[in-house]
Amino acid sequence: MISEKLIQNLKDAGIACSDSAEHLSKFSSDWSKLTSEEPLLVVFPKTTEEVSAVVRACKDEGVAIVPAGGLTGLAGGANAKEGTVSLSFEKLNKVFDFDAVGKTLHCGAGVLTEELLDRCESEGYRFPIDLAAKGSSQNGGNVATNAGGLEVVRYGMTRANVMGLKVVLADGSILDLTRRLEKHNVGYDLKQLFIGSEGTLGLITEVVWKVHPKSQASAHVMLPLQKPEHVSELLKRIHSASINIQRFEFVDTNSIDLVEQTHAGVKCPLESGSGVGCLILEFFDETEKRIEDWLAGLFEDGLIEDAVVPKSAAEVQNIWKVRELVSESLSAGKHLWKEDLSVPLGRLSEFLAWLHKDFRAEIASGKLYLFGHVGDGNVHVNIGSTDEQQGFDEQKTEQRPKLMDYVQSLGGSHSAEHGVGMLKRDLLDNYLSDVEKDVMAKLKLALDPDNLLNPGKVTSTNSAVK
Amino acid sequence: MISEKLIQNLKDAGIACSDSAEHLSKFSSDWSKLTSEEPLLVVFPKTTEEVSAVVRACKDEGVAIVPAGGLTGLAGGANAKEGTVSLSFEKLNKVFDFDAVGKTLHCGAGVLTEELLDRCESEGYRFPIDLAAKGSSQNGGNVATNAGGLEVVRYGMTRANVMGLKVVLADGSILDLTRRLEKHNVGYDLKQLFIGSEGTLGLITEVVWKVHPKSQASAHVMLPLQKPEHVSELLKRIHSASINIQRFEFVDTNSIDLVEQTHAGVKCPLESGSGVGCLILEFFDETEKRIEDWLAGLFEDGLIEDAVVPKSAAEVQNIWKVRELVSESLSAGKHLWKEDLSVPLGRLSEFLAWLHKDFRAEIASGKLYLFGHVGDGNVHVNIGSTDEQQGFDEQKTEQRPKLMDYVQSLGGSHSAEHGVGMLKRDLLDNYLSDVEKDVMAKLKLALDPDNLLNPGKVTSTNSAVK
Repeated sequence: MISEKLIQNLKDAGIACSDSAEHLSKFSSDWSKLTSEEPLLVVFPKTTEEVSAVVRACKDEGVAIVPAGGLTGLAGGANAKEGTVSLSFEKLNKVFDFDAVGKTLHCGAGVLTEELLDRCESEGYRFPIDLAAKGSSQNGGNVATNAGGLEVVRYGMTRANVMGLKVVLADGSILDLTRRLEKHNVGYDLKQLFIGSEGTLGLITEVVWKVHPKSQASAHVMLPLQKPEHVSELLKRIHSASINIQRFEFVDTNSIDLVEQTHAGVKCPLESGSGVGCLILEFFDETEKRIEDWLAGLFEDGLIEDAVVPKSAAEVQNIWKVRELVSESLSAGKHLWKEDLSVPLGRLSEFLAWLHKDFRAEIASGKLYLFGHVGDGNVHVNIGSTDEQQGFDEQKTEQRPKLMDYVQSLGGSHSAEHGVGMLKRDLLDNYLSDVEKDVMAKLKLALDPDNLLNPGKVTSTNSAVK
Repeated sequence: MISEKLIQNLKDAGIACSDSAEHLSKFSSDWSKLTSEEPLLVVFPKTTEEVSAVVRACKDEGVAIVPAGGLTGLAGGANAKEGTVSLSFEKLNKVFDFDAVGKTLHCGAGVLTEELLDRCESEGYRFPIDLAAKGSSQNGGNVATNAGGLEVVRYGMTRANVMGLKVVLADGSILDLTRRLEKHNVGYDLKQLFIGSEGTLGLITEVVWKVHPKSQASAHVMLPLQKPEHVSELLKRIHSASINIQRFEFVDTNSIDLVEQTHAGVKCPLESGSGVGCLILEFFDETEKRIEDWLAGLFEDGLIEDAVVPKSAAEVQNIWKVRELVSESLSAGKHLWKEDLSVPLGRLSEFLAWLHKDFRAEIASGKLYLFGHVGDGNVHVNIGSTDEQQGFDEQKTEQRPKLMDYVQSLGGSHSAEHGVGMLKRDLLDNYLSDVEKDVMAKLKLALDPDNLLNPGKVTSTNSAVK
């Protein structure tokens, strides 16, 4: 039960609140659909000052806050817990400023990613974050989770594209770091603390984004990946020829087949039967001649036997559909076990070969689907099944540690871009060093000593702060 | 006096130590020559484990450590203090690994910047940090100070180019973050804490660098800057034409004249008399045609009346000498007051105009020299003089707050790339918010509660930790 005093304090501060069944249900879980605990209340502050007022009111009553962006996360980072207040950023939805000379965009945390993509496009610039959930995800959520997406290979993760932040701290104070400076070496770079910390150290209310000039030109190609080992060689040839890459994506044959089965209009233009799957690449600022020469080298050296170079916008769209529809197609299945792994690029061939052969051989219940941003070393590993639940779950219990141990042995990451949330705390427990966990716990204690910000997320389950 | 026990403990751990007059003097100050307090002892550990042993031994005796890289800093960040031990990283000088597929270079903190530039060059790659001090600066020092340099406009600051770190913490424990992953969202990104914190939160012993494919082509041009206001227009035209920029530097007429006076062989190929100074640009991966077209547009619209496009390597070298020799030429003068300021790119024209006219008018003793990385909004503001010291110092006392207040009013930075060290703590005191300083102090307390790591640097002079 929520205290009358808290309700009164929020009302006095003019904060929009809701305890409608619809809102309580909606804010119980993100896209992971992991849990179904409902918050006491959902609040909809409109400004940083209102967020600060919410934090102070909740702190006074010892009530924890769960920040919620577009709820598109896959690790339960925004899932409510019993006895908490969910704080929605959807009304912090203003674009304050676009600076064409400084290449910055300053906006509220609740503006949708797609709106920022469109705004930059209309200004003649490129917004650096493009991901499947863009129609629902909020830009503040991208920052809080250090989102990745399709163009990390060119622009880097979200972290690399944040110039400034405004943050409400656990005591309600406002930390204004909305500087628009490429260079500022005066003390510790505090904004880094909040990027990727999933709202456990502070609540991000405003973001100053770095945006980018539009490319002079872009070109696309779909190539067969005949052997997993070829990925390293392709990457090396991209580096040595200094080929400009905007996207470097992979879809395996199971995923291609699934997309074709679930979407009648989509047909992969490459014969998928022979190899591991296909790579879809976008180049920027390259001449046709350079791309042709580069591809000719691949043919000559037997790395590819075919290549699809789309000639129209519709053909470009078609090859990208093969990649973009994988997640959606998988969601239609009965059970799904999703992992989001990465390895050092130098170990990617080894990792793909192992997944394709050894790990696949261990999967008895369901089918293995491999796809993702391999140009960053990031592979989405999915096992989908229409089998009965129990066998599928038992397999996961048995096989997951083997998969994770192997990733560890390659120096890889157990959550490349999806974060930790509540879903992956066990991986943090098991695969980070004690020293690393200890420093994380110290940071959490220093900034949120009463554990009022998104409790039970990100930190180790063994840490002093639960 | 250093305790016998500390000496014995260091000897037992096999650490090379020196209290020679030469070493004590050398480690008393970096290039700022700010102070002359000598350390008790200089230690030269060879491995991370030895650094850890030094920290434990010093901690046991309550002796603070001042980490020292190549001593090329300009803010006294590596200056010894009475009663401290200076820790030199020069023997952590191994390159462990170069990964051509993963585009990473893993090395000890003590390897010189120039060695890494050369190594990458020989591998067919580009190391992202290039700065005047490269022949003496150590790469670990670059990370500890988040160094900038000439190619930030393309590659970003040091922070953007660090993939992994190994750090010894204040209790001697080793935090191994030497991952080679573009994507890793498992918990807080702890390496960010240490980048730019000048050794006050931990001692960086190893770095995994991101390196870059070499450019396909590069081209250079020197342009007159006829009016400060033109800078914004030039930047906008670079963005809108999506011109690829590697360097975007400025040298004002006073600086050009000084370089020519102090270096007989150097002659600026542009007539410097008419305008504010000159811009020197490097392009990458551009065709001659595109550069010509872009320049033609500038001529047509009256933004430039001249342009020097060097035709040979010697001519390229010559235009860059005009920029590269400014600092050295200034050091030859009698008194020098140096500032390292940045403003949002969108305010750069305004800032340059104010410096060129209003601020210059206030300078009675000495000459104003403006130069630097204006493509990042970064202007090195120097006042050099052969006048008598007293008048010069009084002028600085009077004018510096006006300069800094103006920078603040533009949303600028009071130390763009040189850091805080001991020299600029007053700026941190005066221009950061109380909330920001409070969070910094909390971080310092959480990670170095006994203030054993580089005391008296970076943090506010008013903070609990001095």
